[in-house]
Amino acid sequence: MENEFIQLEGGLDTVEGFFTLGVHCGIKKVNNDLAIIFADTPAAAAAVFTTNRVCAAPVEVTRQNLKKNGHFQLVVINSGVANACTGQRGLEDAITMSEIAAREFGLSDPSLVAVASTGVIGDFLPLDKIEFGIKKVKEFYPQTHSSRETARAIMTTDTFMKERAISFQLYGQEVHLAGIAKGSGMIRPNMATMLGFLLTDAAVYPDSLQKALKTAVDVSFNRVTVDGDTSTNDMVLLMANGKCGKTRIDENHPDFPRFQAALTFVCQELAKDIARDGEGATKFINIMVRGAQSENDARTIAFTVAESPLVKTAFFGQDPNWGRIMAAIGRSGIAVIPDKIYISINDNPFVEDGMGTKKMTRNELQSVIQNKDLEIVIELNQGNAEFNVWTCDLSFDYVKINSHYS
Amino acid sequence: MENEFIQLEGGLDTVEGFFTLGVHCGIKKVNNDLAIIFADTPAAAAAVFTTNRVCAAPVEVTRQNLKKNGHFQLVVINSGVANACTGQRGLEDAITMSEIAAREFGLSDPSLVAVASTGVIGDFLPLDKIEFGIKKVKEFYPQTHSSRETARAIMTTDTFMKERAISFQLYGQEVHLAGIAKGSGMIRPNMATMLGFLLTDAAVYPDSLQKALKTAVDVSFNRVTVDGDTSTNDMVLLMANGKCGKTRIDENHPDFPRFQAALTFVCQELAKDIARDGEGATKFINIMVRGAQSENDARTIAFTVAESPLVKTAFFGQDPNWGRIMAAIGRSGIAVIPDKIYISINDNPFVEDGMGTKKMTRNELQSVIQNKDLEIVIELNQGNAEFNVWTCDLSFDYVKINSHYS
Repeated sequence: MENEFIQLEGGLDTVEGFFTLGVHCGIKKVNNDLAIIFADTPAAAAAVFTTNRVCAAPVEVTRQNLKKNGHFQLVVINSGVANACTGQRGLEDAITMSEIAAREFGLSDPSLVAVASTGVIGDFLPLDKIEFGIKKVKEFYPQTHSSRETARAIMTTDTFMKERAISFQLYGQEVHLAGIAKGSGMIRPNMATMLGFLLTDAAVYPDSLQKALKTAVDVSFNRVTVDGDTSTNDMVLLMANGKCGKTRIDENHPDFPRFQAALTFVCQELAKDIARDGEGATKFINIMVRGAQSENDARTIAFTVAESPLVKTAFFGQDPNWGRIMAAIGRSGIAVIPDKIYISINDNPFVEDGMGTKKMTRNELQSVIQNKDLEIVIELNQGNAEFNVWTCDLSFDYVKINSHYS
Repeated sequence: MENEFIQLEGGLDTVEGFFTLGVHCGIKKVNNDLAIIFADTPAAAAAVFTTNRVCAAPVEVTRQNLKKNGHFQLVVINSGVANACTGQRGLEDAITMSEIAAREFGLSDPSLVAVASTGVIGDFLPLDKIEFGIKKVKEFYPQTHSSRETARAIMTTDTFMKERAISFQLYGQEVHLAGIAKGSGMIRPNMATMLGFLLTDAAVYPDSLQKALKTAVDVSFNRVTVDGDTSTNDMVLLMANGKCGKTRIDENHPDFPRFQAALTFVCQELAKDIARDGEGATKFINIMVRGAQSENDARTIAFTVAESPLVKTAFFGQDPNWGRIMAAIGRSGIAVIPDKIYISINDNPFVEDGMGTKKMTRNELQSVIQNKDLEIVIELNQGNAEFNVWTCDLSFDYVKINSHYS
């Protein structure tokens, strides 16, 4: 399936009918901190939001606006301040942010604007700086656009910007799909301090777009965990302006699975980049649990192992301490049968029948885990269900980054 | 209630009728690694074991022996090797360990022996060294005993030995109760790599002893979390030899609550020492959740906050980033009402009505969290249930210790 997609340079700039740019407006000392995505015409929209009960003001405003219209024409995003735990004033500020953007870009209806914020919790939005930033972007419109500057503007502790773009055939026509994302610490399933913005020029009905996004997020962003923490501000937004496509498709259209696959592919690539860029990460780790009695069992074990600080520090230290993986499996609450467990890393046996393998020396095990990319397969031999999670190791730098953040 | 107990120096040595000693037998390069507790006569026993499904061989052997007799006369403990994930041979080794100890101390029934191990998972017990250690202790018996050397012999990455002893009045007589424990990393409720051995010369029936221990563990060791990981080897063992007491008491005896309170007190003191000595810990943190709709809600929130790497690194960095506490509360899965939440640290307001307090400056907040002991009170204002957890911060040293362990 992957082969049907042509990967492109240029990120969001490859999608027709959208202007995007990021600038520095002064919320952060340096680096871009404000981004705009502007569509020529209102675009069908879909979104998935944080499940954190402490949910930031921009999440509430964007959710309401989406419910009202099913379409967005403008997205305004800031980094540096999360506008979370800011009460009624926070809600008013998020609405004001959408109104400023609507005014500057000539939209009469501010509910066609999506707003998103990421950064420190508890501070109020510096609306003067945000207004300055929006006006700055407007000055460049429409000549100077840049997916890259946009992707940079949504970063917090990310060390590299994340963007992907593909083209593929849909209803006999070439269409484009692209996305940017931010992640780093506090990443966890159910959309933890991660932002993702996806654009396509394909023509899809909003309801079907929402279904496709939900499906894609479940097997991509919701499979990433860096530290088990989840945030107040997460949002993945997808806009489809239909520039390439005479008629809109829905989920019954024969080409819908192809659209779904393309969206899933882009989301998974961005999700893996997020795990790869986990705060202080030195390794990218895919944990695959197989042979479980249910997908839920496999999921529980995968996340318990992926979020175990002892497992994660052992990988950072290149210590082939498979006992910690066994201990994490054992405390997951799932009724595993220890003697049936097999564990391999990059296709090398580590655990057989619940015990350390006799096929490899300690030195050999150690050389396996010196790889930067690790594929850990946990075979439970109890059933046919499986689930995988992407994560990273836990390093000194994680502690360094997170002990002095706010 | 606490005032009724007289705290004593001397740990396990203060309890009549028990001999205890720890020695170095060579499992670890340096430091004690083998301990014996020997009672003059079989003592009523109670125990609480790990809930980890991957459960070490000594746990299984001790559980079976306790079920058979309800009494123990001898305990043999080693550190350095956990004898976990060692299959059938591990079970046989644990039984052999009990048989060697029984033989050396002249017991005809090896099922009167409890065995415990802690250390690296996956290696087999070095039975020759264990036999050497048991014989070494026997040479000192009965003249040279030492609670302190015993407490040292069960340590792994612990930085200080943990022992407590009290005397108190029971059925009109002075009795003694003492305990030693080990903890450090991998500590979590449900008995995570922690060992605890408690002795008393009070006379209590085994069934009542078990009830008292279960109650005490629930409000002590099960409220400690260092990193959310739990181990394969945990065990808390209580032996009551009845040397002080003409008749045994059960849970219907009017003085049973006093015995319960004494046991709970000793367990709580040991549990707090374990949190204080969490791997790399620089702070002791008590997280109290109040005003929840149920104790289970309060417990879930308390553990979610206590185990959040982002909260723990912020405390290490002395960063008054209360937003991370709010985010952890929000993702706990409990239906909190953010606007009703109050958070104080050492009686200073940090969050009011779900927002940062206006009563303190950032500098003032920062000076509060510079204390080594932090009492965080999270008031949900939704009900009357509460739950507290003891934990520590997450430092560079945690990563250092755990990235090079096995």
